Amino acid sequence: MLQKFTETARPEQGPPRLAALRAQFDAARIDGVIVPRTDAHQGEYVAPRDDRLAWLTGFTGSAGYCVALRDAAGVFVDGRYRVQVKSQVADVFTPVDWPETGLAAWISDKLPDGGVVGIDPWLFSVDQMRSLRADLTGVSLRFTENLVDRIWQDQPAPPMGTVFAQDVALAGEPHGDKIDRLARDLGASSCVITLPDSIAWLLNIRGSDIAHNPVPHGFALLNADGTVELFMADEKLADLGDHLGDRVSVLPPEGFLAAIATLQGPVRIDPATCPVAVADALQGVEIVEAPDPCLLPKACKNEAELAGARAAHLRDGAAMVRFLAWLDAQPAGSYTEIDVVERLEAERRATNALRDISFETISGAGSNGAIVHYRVTERTNRQVNAGELLLVDSGGQYVDGTTDITRTIAIGQPGDEEREAFTRVLKGMIALSRLRFPAGLAGRDIDVLARAALWEVGLDYGHGTGHGVGAYLSVHEGPARIARTGTVPFAPGMILSNEPGFYREGAYGIRIENLIAVEHASPVAGQTVPAMYRFETLTWVPIDRRLIVPDLLTAQERDWLNAYHGDVLARIGDLVDGSVAGWLHAACAPL
Amino acid sequence: MLQKFTETARPEQGPPRLAALRAQFDAARIDGVIVPRTDAHQGEYVAPRDDRLAWLTGFTGSAGYCVALRDAAGVFVDGRYRVQVKSQVADVFTPVDWPETGLAAWISDKLPDGGVVGIDPWLFSVDQMRSLRADLTGVSLRFTENLVDRIWQDQPAPPMGTVFAQDVALAGEPHGDKIDRLARDLGASSCVITLPDSIAWLLNIRGSDIAHNPVPHGFALLNADGTVELFMADEKLADLGDHLGDRVSVLPPEGFLAAIATLQGPVRIDPATCPVAVADALQGVEIVEAPDPCLLPKACKNEAELAGARAAHLRDGAAMVRFLAWLDAQPAGSYTEIDVVERLEAERRATNALRDISFETISGAGSNGAIVHYRVTERTNRQVNAGELLLVDSGGQYVDGTTDITRTIAIGQPGDEEREAFTRVLKGMIALSRLRFPAGLAGRDIDVLARAALWEVGLDYGHGTGHGVGAYLSVHEGPARIARTGTVPFAPGMILSNEPGFYREGAYGIRIENLIAVEHASPVAGQTVPAMYRFETLTWVPIDRRLIVPDLLTAQERDWLNAYHGDVLARIGDLVDGSVAGWLHAACAPL
Repeated sequence: MLQKFTETARPEQGPPRLAALRAQFDAARIDGVIVPRTDAHQGEYVAPRDDRLAWLTGFTGSAGYCVALRDAAGVFVDGRYRVQVKSQVADVFTPVDWPETGLAAWISDKLPDGGVVGIDPWLFSVDQMRSLRADLTGVSLRFTENLVDRIWQDQPAPPMGTVFAQDVALAGEPHGDKIDRLARDLGASSCVITLPDSIAWLLNIRGSDIAHNPVPHGFALLNADGTVELFMADEKLADLGDHLGDRVSVLPPEGFLAAIATLQGPVRIDPATCPVAVADALQGVEIVEAPDPCLLPKACKNEAELAGARAAHLRDGAAMVRFLAWLDAQPAGSYTEIDVVERLEAERRATNALRDISFETISGAGSNGAIVHYRVTERTNRQVNAGELLLVDSGGQYVDGTTDITRTIAIGQPGDEEREAFTRVLKGMIALSRLRFPAGLAGRDIDVLARAALWEVGLDYGHGTGHGVGAYLSVHEGPARIARTGTVPFAPGMILSNEPGFYREGAYGIRIENLIAVEHASPVAGQTVPAMYRFETLTWVPIDRRLIVPDLLTAQERDWLNAYHGDVLARIGDLVDGSVAGWLHAACAPL
Repeated sequence: MLQKFTETARPEQGPPRLAALRAQFDAARIDGVIVPRTDAHQGEYVAPRDDRLAWLTGFTGSAGYCVALRDAAGVFVDGRYRVQVKSQVADVFTPVDWPETGLAAWISDKLPDGGVVGIDPWLFSVDQMRSLRADLTGVSLRFTENLVDRIWQDQPAPPMGTVFAQDVALAGEPHGDKIDRLARDLGASSCVITLPDSIAWLLNIRGSDIAHNPVPHGFALLNADGTVELFMADEKLADLGDHLGDRVSVLPPEGFLAAIATLQGPVRIDPATCPVAVADALQGVEIVEAPDPCLLPKACKNEAELAGARAAHLRDGAAMVRFLAWLDAQPAGSYTEIDVVERLEAERRATNALRDISFETISGAGSNGAIVHYRVTERTNRQVNAGELLLVDSGGQYVDGTTDITRTIAIGQPGDEEREAFTRVLKGMIALSRLRFPAGLAGRDIDVLARAALWEVGLDYGHGTGHGVGAYLSVHEGPARIARTGTVPFAPGMILSNEPGFYREGAYGIRIENLIAVEHASPVAGQTVPAMYRFETLTWVPIDRRLIVPDLLTAQERDWLNAYHGDVLARIGDLVDGSVAGWLHAACAPL
């Protein structure tokens, strides 16, 4: 199993570790320390070595901070984790609602004027430190070595996952060409790249340093002369042969700071993700602040990447269909949430193409489905019973593409309330699927379309409608998103999720998610808008018809759904047989 | 007639005036001058005295600039006026597409380094001057007296329109209370108020200095101690009696700059609208930059203002219905666009309550309807013929409210293309009318709902979907709007227009406009969103059923339209009789 169901941290480990951490304060001349979840690469997943927040506090969420002072220790978690944190940390830790309460406000309130808080400058981006500094009153920051690392006796070593070349037939563009086109518009002599998926995309490599994201840890300097210095442990690159070529030099990661300290500049950094430690090493050099130059071209998939995504989605769709057919054949109450995860992973493995799951599967029955980022563990695991909804959000990493799909399934006879809510979520999902829109719009301009049918009856969902998805890279990538915070204009080739939902706390959760790709819309007769886009659907898996109230759909929405199911049958029908094919036929029948 | 159809400026007047202006450059030590359309109060309408741009160039649009250099003169106009400007200015003037080409870029390109451009600091806001200065390269700005005023021999005097008290029963709040609540949160010792409608709202007064906006010209200082100094010509206030009370002192407008120069500060100004001349007079004083404190409370109408708006809309709706019934009885080809304007104004006058029209009526038949801000003149006037669409956008100023309504009417048998486009515009207008949405959203979050049905067939419109509307004040007011640029969250009491459209250049124009007011939406069963808003419809006038393709409407849209027409009949039916009542019944029949 790629997914584990054990809880890695226990609350009772927290108090002695917190005490050990506090014992470092005097020598470090600080009154407190901030321990973030993130590593030096600002990703969603971290290596075991970097999972300092969980090791210290017990809290295992994917985002958060601990602020440990001498006589208080806050664990800052967002809305997704406010229930979870309570069962994971001992009472020496105080859960704090973040970002409603900011780190700086909390610290300024607790520490007297003149207080000093330590941070590891590798774990904070330039922007994060600036906003922290601006918001702190009477308290200053001091850069320290990592104090958790100092007390963590059996801290795992840095990951040394093998790095592989990504075939240019799948990447669609030789990495030399990528380097050339980015180097041309660099606006600086060199550019620091610290995001692992940017480096992986730029050099057409993939790695295995962290779970579910096929990226290697490392840093890179992209130079205006079309060369790259890659700071990455040599032993990870043994299988790579001469893939990187002459223009890419490999250097030991320990030498990264010393190397950038010798740069003449101007040096380009992305303040949103560049560690303070890096910016600090560039003192005296002219710095150009601009977004990581890989972000936008990485988001805009080329034809080869889109072809790969389509192929991956057919393969993954067939695995999902086999899973759903199996699920429907099980008597309600005869299996658990973990059984669901295991069966689904087994179906994906059976494709013989699965490299990893793209994130930990969310399998939530009944009220667990209402916990938006629920991850089942042996402790929370429960039977899936008749009359419940089962929400399954999952994805696969294949060499040709990354998938991410959510289906909500009726177990037994669904209630009327659930069916109405499901249908309204579906209306929103269809509204985006059907949309044609002028070039130039961003996510915030269209997000409302996924919500209006829910608003009509006083419902909404507390997350964005869609995130970018990588090409055999991170399942969550920027810079575009479908959300009120989405300000980057859509561009052809961007792959995004379309995943409205609704969650009735303590009762049930609903989410329907397809991946979609931005494409040019062919002009229609009489069109006056110069350039329009639409979304190509990538995901082909039936949507549970038992949960749809047909009368709530407009004729156009019903037509879309029937056409979608017709396409599912046409594309997936040949990939399954026997009882699965029969199940698929029934699941795709017109409404 | 409140509306005139003569063209006030002739192209041949431009060249000698431009020559006379250039003859001032040496004495003023400048190489050019910027002449804006706006006056010191940044409004849409200006007094004849301030109509310098039209006097100099012949261009009569409501926004624009002339930049006169020694050997070039650009007239900068936006998309609304690019056809019109060509027929209005002589060829010594070069029309420039603005804002695509910025003033600063054009000037920097034309003037050698070291060039100096003069501006009248009363006619530029602090923000405008900052952005001009930031964008100019190698060219500096010099403040001058107004050079157009110096050569304009028969320039009209400043307007001396009578000022009236607005009855507190209509205003809903004594002006002393308004002063008190604003003074409490001023964040400064004094606040400079330069917007006439802000002053009118704050002091519950109305004026008659400019056309169509019932506001007096003047400036005010609102002080944290709850006093106001009003800089306004005494002779305009003769009819006001003791309305203003002890806490408002009236001072001569000529003394305004000298008075603010004595302030100790901190002084609050709104950089978006405060003239540079005012900010300049405050040198050495601490300045607090913040929005005009009247903007938001003025936009959020109280119960009395909303009651007034409802009454004004019933009265105005009955006038519109009489006009539409008359129109339908006329043989196509027997009347002109001007006849339409005159008849509609006559119907509004017949209410015996009309104070003014709220803007110059747009009456555009056939291809003239596609000119978004078309104003018919004797030169452009034409017959309204069978087979055409007639677009009529108009409004009235009543003592209890300001109206703004657009209806598009089929003259004879409409074409299929026009009917489909009309129906799609209607779908957008209904989408906003039906919307329930969470508190906290702004115009940019919902604008897409008015456009999606047009986008579906490649159509769109090049203007915002809605603007704020005053309470017997300006028909265009901030700060909220329904548009991609609308970032101010909606709040209860805001009156906005809902006016999607479609324009086929050279052929026809369509727009449907109702006014709507933001209100709390009562919670529905099962609602999870804590606070929701909806829009109360204020406008009650039939929408032309001959232009609707019923099959393009969803059941919900059809239900909305039928319910709307039912409400129109219920509200307006008793206000009309005879043949008009018969017409109204037919116009409100269910689809």
